[in-house]
Amino acid sequence: MTSSWWLEPCRPVAEQARELASARQRQLTKPSGSLGMLEELAITLAGLQNRERPSLENVCISIFAGDHGVVAEGVSAFPQEVTGQMLRNFVRGGAAISVLARQLDASLEVVDLGTAFPLEALPGVRHLAIGPGTGNFVEGPAMTHEQGLLALEAGRESALRVAGEGGQLFIGGEMGIGNTTSACAVACALLGVPASVLVGPGTGLDAAGVQHKANVIDRALALHADANTQPLAILLNLGGFEIAALAGAYIACAQQGVAVLIDGFICSVAALLAVRLNPGCANWLLFGHRGAEPGHRYLLDALEAKPLLELGLRLGEGSGAALAVPLLRMACALHGEMATFAEAAVADRPA
Amino acid sequence: MTSSWWLEPCRPVAEQARELASARQRQLTKPSGSLGMLEELAITLAGLQNRERPSLENVCISIFAGDHGVVAEGVSAFPQEVTGQMLRNFVRGGAAISVLARQLDASLEVVDLGTAFPLEALPGVRHLAIGPGTGNFVEGPAMTHEQGLLALEAGRESALRVAGEGGQLFIGGEMGIGNTTSACAVACALLGVPASVLVGPGTGLDAAGVQHKANVIDRALALHADANTQPLAILLNLGGFEIAALAGAYIACAQQGVAVLIDGFICSVAALLAVRLNPGCANWLLFGHRGAEPGHRYLLDALEAKPLLELGLRLGEGSGAALAVPLLRMACALHGEMATFAEAAVADRPA
Repeated sequence: MTSSWWLEPCRPVAEQARELASARQRQLTKPSGSLGMLEELAITLAGLQNRERPSLENVCISIFAGDHGVVAEGVSAFPQEVTGQMLRNFVRGGAAISVLARQLDASLEVVDLGTAFPLEALPGVRHLAIGPGTGNFVEGPAMTHEQGLLALEAGRESALRVAGEGGQLFIGGEMGIGNTTSACAVACALLGVPASVLVGPGTGLDAAGVQHKANVIDRALALHADANTQPLAILLNLGGFEIAALAGAYIACAQQGVAVLIDGFICSVAALLAVRLNPGCANWLLFGHRGAEPGHRYLLDALEAKPLLELGLRLGEGSGAALAVPLLRMACALHGEMATFAEAAVADRPA
Repeated sequence: MTSSWWLEPCRPVAEQARELASARQRQLTKPSGSLGMLEELAITLAGLQNRERPSLENVCISIFAGDHGVVAEGVSAFPQEVTGQMLRNFVRGGAAISVLARQLDASLEVVDLGTAFPLEALPGVRHLAIGPGTGNFVEGPAMTHEQGLLALEAGRESALRVAGEGGQLFIGGEMGIGNTTSACAVACALLGVPASVLVGPGTGLDAAGVQHKANVIDRALALHADANTQPLAILLNLGGFEIAALAGAYIACAQQGVAVLIDGFICSVAALLAVRLNPGCANWLLFGHRGAEPGHRYLLDALEAKPLLELGLRLGEGSGAALAVPLLRMACALHGEMATFAEAAVADRPA
């Protein structure tokens, strides 16, 4: 691990491949623009893969899990034991993301960054034990500097493995009871807005629960206001291990030249953090969906993101990004396999 | 062909299977409601397939093509030869829907209802020769009563074949230069609104072209106003062969118990026509996407439809419905394969 590896430059986009792809799109047997967002998507992927006709056979999903000290404040609808229980469910194949990874023929890696309740060693899970969850950030920093670096590095390790295996698309997912509270606090600090702008029900709080969650976040923002001068400090004070790992993975993917598909609210906060840490990574981030968490729309606007789906999802685990993968694959297939006007002897001129 | 077969009752939805599926959804290892529209979709398909855990292996696409006399008024950006040229492109595998059918492992049938320029017999295409396109509906009826019945029946034949082959989902697509003009006219007559409410650029008219198209449609609406007393009369006066075939296919699918996924603007007009001809078919219609044609939103609202995708598509051919198929399949997989809270020993109670 080099110091401050996340500041190193990201891979540039291949402009020539983008231009070739753009020219090809205009020759395909359809009215120009009639495939809407799928046309721009194919051109974007051409630029990221540096080939006129991109493809997405090799999709890699990594789930990062960690617990959150702030759940002591009563901010989640589910008990903290669920984080570990869901890790077992991921591995055994019963979770939503497990089903979707099978459907997509995607690899699924599970990374346990640190849970509050000790877990047995699970087959295929990387147990990193950075800590028994984060500290309660209304009382002090969520994590130490060393823990933050370890969590960022955990994400980078996943990205390096994906790049080494020829991965063409990386999806990060997250699991951690309480993590919409942490994500919301991080985003509020990065964007300079109060909790009310971004707070939401997470896995299922009622209105009173959402108000309480907002109060907890605003207390934390006040406590850390003087120290929150840089994105890294904001991560350490208010973040979660999985949020750090996601941001680290996103930046490292951009450095390695692997396209990233962002999931929902928490992953979008990690994306915002990644872009603040290293603006060059923004070119490598595609967005899967606009979720049901009310603050997600605000976040996506801040990121100038145009997500593919809007299905009222609020599960996490990377599931919303996984659901968008077939659209990316079909965009590539249409771009690569459709006939041109000349090949098909179809008139391409207005009457 | 029995007389007025389209009035015969549609298959009822299996309420018990819906209830079983709904109960199962509440037991899966996720916060209740967190899979958004995919949860309701799985429950809906359970009711249509009369099984707690639906599946969608067998997807059948039929493209209906026909020409339109109203192109003599200069309402399309593309020349009329393109209808036949695209039929060849469908068969040779170079069109967008050809690529998508391969990606989805779906069957693709092409039905030539009648083109203005004579076509050679194409392998695998049903050439029905109902007429050399429709008549110009600003001068008289688009088709005769006999032609209308033949076109409705053509759609029914496709639906009966799909049902006989165990098809689990039917997608109708269309090809016909000028058919957004015909579709718009039919919808305006069915909904009692002027052309300005629903008209749009189709494959690529400029603002002046759209205004001219609206004027043409309003003239046709005025000409046929007294005769447009029933949905069938509206179809005969203003419709196209492919619009009739789509409506016939939708109704017959509902009678046979095959779920339907509706594509864009023109298919949605055919769906509105089908529902007006036989309201019971509405239960069997799912909607793939909200397209770029401005009137599509108005139409979908009139149908109380909640489409899955919104990608700025305006191609037709069934492509927008095809693009939504993976979401339906993943909804089924999640519903059928996710673990329950009990199976996975995950706590399902709020803290």
